[in-house]
Amino acid sequence: MRVLLTRVSRFSRKLQSSCCVYTSPYRFDMAKPEEKPNKFQLKTPKGTRDYGPEQTAVRNDVLNRITKVFKRHGAVNIDTPIFELKDVLTGKYGEDSKLIYDLADQGGESLSLRYDLTVPFARYLAMNKITNIKRYQIAKVYRRDNPAMTRGRYREFYQCDYDIAGQYDEMIPEAECVFVATEILSSLDAGKFIVKVNHRLLLDGLFEACGVPIDKFRAMCSAVDKLDKMSWAEVKKEMVEEKGLAEDIADRIGVYVRMNGSSELVEALFKDDLLTTSKMATQGLESLRLFFQYIKNFGIEDLVSFDLSLARGLDYYTGIIYEVSLLEKGESIGSVAGGGRYDNLVGMFHPKNKTIPCVGISIGVERLFTVLEAKFAKEKLKVRTTEVQVYVAAAQKNLVEHRMTICRDLWNAGIEAEHSYKKNPKLLAQLQHCEENEIPWAIVIGDSEIEKGIVKIRNVATRQEEEIKKEQLVEEMFKKLSIKI
Amino acid sequence: MRVLLTRVSRFSRKLQSSCCVYTSPYRFDMAKPEEKPNKFQLKTPKGTRDYGPEQTAVRNDVLNRITKVFKRHGAVNIDTPIFELKDVLTGKYGEDSKLIYDLADQGGESLSLRYDLTVPFARYLAMNKITNIKRYQIAKVYRRDNPAMTRGRYREFYQCDYDIAGQYDEMIPEAECVFVATEILSSLDAGKFIVKVNHRLLLDGLFEACGVPIDKFRAMCSAVDKLDKMSWAEVKKEMVEEKGLAEDIADRIGVYVRMNGSSELVEALFKDDLLTTSKMATQGLESLRLFFQYIKNFGIEDLVSFDLSLARGLDYYTGIIYEVSLLEKGESIGSVAGGGRYDNLVGMFHPKNKTIPCVGISIGVERLFTVLEAKFAKEKLKVRTTEVQVYVAAAQKNLVEHRMTICRDLWNAGIEAEHSYKKNPKLLAQLQHCEENEIPWAIVIGDSEIEKGIVKIRNVATRQEEEIKKEQLVEEMFKKLSIKI
Repeated sequence: MRVLLTRVSRFSRKLQSSCCVYTSPYRFDMAKPEEKPNKFQLKTPKGTRDYGPEQTAVRNDVLNRITKVFKRHGAVNIDTPIFELKDVLTGKYGEDSKLIYDLADQGGESLSLRYDLTVPFARYLAMNKITNIKRYQIAKVYRRDNPAMTRGRYREFYQCDYDIAGQYDEMIPEAECVFVATEILSSLDAGKFIVKVNHRLLLDGLFEACGVPIDKFRAMCSAVDKLDKMSWAEVKKEMVEEKGLAEDIADRIGVYVRMNGSSELVEALFKDDLLTTSKMATQGLESLRLFFQYIKNFGIEDLVSFDLSLARGLDYYTGIIYEVSLLEKGESIGSVAGGGRYDNLVGMFHPKNKTIPCVGISIGVERLFTVLEAKFAKEKLKVRTTEVQVYVAAAQKNLVEHRMTICRDLWNAGIEAEHSYKKNPKLLAQLQHCEENEIPWAIVIGDSEIEKGIVKIRNVATRQEEEIKKEQLVEEMFKKLSIKI
Repeated sequence: MRVLLTRVSRFSRKLQSSCCVYTSPYRFDMAKPEEKPNKFQLKTPKGTRDYGPEQTAVRNDVLNRITKVFKRHGAVNIDTPIFELKDVLTGKYGEDSKLIYDLADQGGESLSLRYDLTVPFARYLAMNKITNIKRYQIAKVYRRDNPAMTRGRYREFYQCDYDIAGQYDEMIPEAECVFVATEILSSLDAGKFIVKVNHRLLLDGLFEACGVPIDKFRAMCSAVDKLDKMSWAEVKKEMVEEKGLAEDIADRIGVYVRMNGSSELVEALFKDDLLTTSKMATQGLESLRLFFQYIKNFGIEDLVSFDLSLARGLDYYTGIIYEVSLLEKGESIGSVAGGGRYDNLVGMFHPKNKTIPCVGISIGVERLFTVLEAKFAKEKLKVRTTEVQVYVAAAQKNLVEHRMTICRDLWNAGIEAEHSYKKNPKLLAQLQHCEENEIPWAIVIGDSEIEKGIVKIRNVATRQEEEIKKEQLVEEMFKKLSIKI
């Protein structure tokens, strides 16, 4: 946040007074009395928000940092439409399908707004017959969820996805996805975090070993998924009372899903007599053993926790799954990223059912924005919303065209500059604008400067001024700005 | 396009063979026979497209250049939701309202996808009681139009908007908006272009002077707007036969709307006896005179044409209007930007009907992408889709963990690097990957290098190799990469 932030200063941009109003028949056409403009509530749709200049500055900085990490790993960028044919999304999200936004039937195709970036990515791969790609996509997705905006949960929100598709060797792409997540969280400076990891095969094997009938695997998975919000007693109740599982089986599951640890727990479970009766469980453990081995090479084993309660809600995962949680005093305060392996999703779209194995990570940035905004507010940091380096000011009246030509020279040289849009602004108001907006340099011209062919360069912070020939201005500013950098 | 483009080279990334497939009950759950995955057509919705890696690279480069110009003029960035309450959009777009996408009624608010960025911007200003701001916004908008995708017309497309809101002096912000447009077009290197300019007051004054009844002004405006696609004879027919205008009045209009020129034409029209009977016409001409005076200070008078046939379709303009057209052999091949002054739009939302004068320019980039893509194809330029600088390769088997630790060191140092996700890839395949993807440097390790604690650095283009101590690798790569830059 180095470039953007400076200590807070008084900010009170004054409303500049009116001077010229046009008249046109359009004016009356557009606000007829019978269609009173303000009859409706002035708001954004439920669960959405505008991003003002300061929020956008923070968000752009966060997204740039994330993009930088994705690019550092050699990912290409793709983009897909904001809506898909409704059929593309059908049957991919389990219980959550009810949260999908549909478009109205206005004649033509049935469309829905995308719910995530993963399903459109899989559709893109199948449609274009792509068999291997490492791509990132940063875009908004839509869920008709109950918004909890103070905690950063919205109906319109950004996802930043990094996925590796292709027939590769086990756990090599997986380990890199988790490494990417840790790099991003570290680069954002949003506090401590932990990556929880589990494996869908281990979960299934665990259900198998505990005696869950195969047709209840999915339901149990979705019950276990609630352990981050509910107690074990409540989850057990759901398993037994709502989903009809025998109580002794639930108790056996309960022993395992409350375990978490590191690679030692993987090794310990290899010696668990019940669990190892399931071949799926053993296969899952072997994958996790290899995963932890690779993670050590990346030097992030301390940031990764093996957590048997992690299940992930979505239907499409088939292998490793992971979730990144922010920590406060050692406790999780919410998930900011998640992902895993989904080997069969592309096949669902593929004309010949061809399987394209995929693994990915999705960063949910809204909660990160909320955390960072709160942090800045607490530390009284002010975000600079423009990059203006030079303000062109006039000390006398009727110099607007002179200001324009100086701005033109600066702009043509690539220097960020602005001037007042008033014909005869007061000098004090112009200099105040520089101070309030932390513009480092002001060029001041007056009649005598124009006569002598010079301009004054003013250092806004120190208020020191120096005179220079007008034709040397651009060169001098280059010098000043590169010294600053 | 300097950084991204290199001469085309043979590109044939091979499909890497399969090696490991997971099994899981999810596989069968997700592709049940009764819900055959491929029963629907595999496509994006009508009028939309995916952007693949090369298209995205071109697009990101274009959007970055545009952003740079907006920032150079000191604009802040804002963002608004992709949908608005339906009422916000109602009554703002005239005949084009039928092109608005509505969301389905799923309980809750009536929503529509945004049609442009201007109306949401006006809603944002009124809602937040902002009286002056200079902002840019780059985002997608949605129109249920008949797509003409080969000519770059889509139902989902980007707009890049720059607007100045506030009570300022006449034509100072207007001239800057047009300057911004010319800077952008020049920076994109998309060929020759012209900015057509007109004024809504002049148009209304012209109608008034010619004897058009005031209730037909809007209809005439929308007829004149078709002159870029239809002949005067056809437009006249619409005026007389469809819209019931007297033929002699239409003929009088016809004399004017076929005129175009420069500031001399403005001066000539001041001497026109008929036109100057209208006070509105005179006021419009005075504004244009001032506009051309300011334009000269920016040095872009040769890029601007005063064109009385320019009317712009949208309802909300109240002052100057302009449109940027690409030229081929002196003829317009389509508009890529447009805008103007809209002083009454914010007032339509404002609780107290407060007027906030606004002027802006909107760049429509899809046609620019199409033009640039065609240009690259013609010049056989290949777009690099990643920024990978270093590829870590192994000369022998079982070195995947060594590759990982080297990648980790490079990533932690901020260097773009990748390696194969296969456990034991062939050396030739790895080096081929570097050549095909134009990765400048390869690090090659084998058992003997590991034993000696060294790595080989290979210049991919020259195939020259040198040996270096492993712990000096990052430092050496910094040197090599900065030499390259």
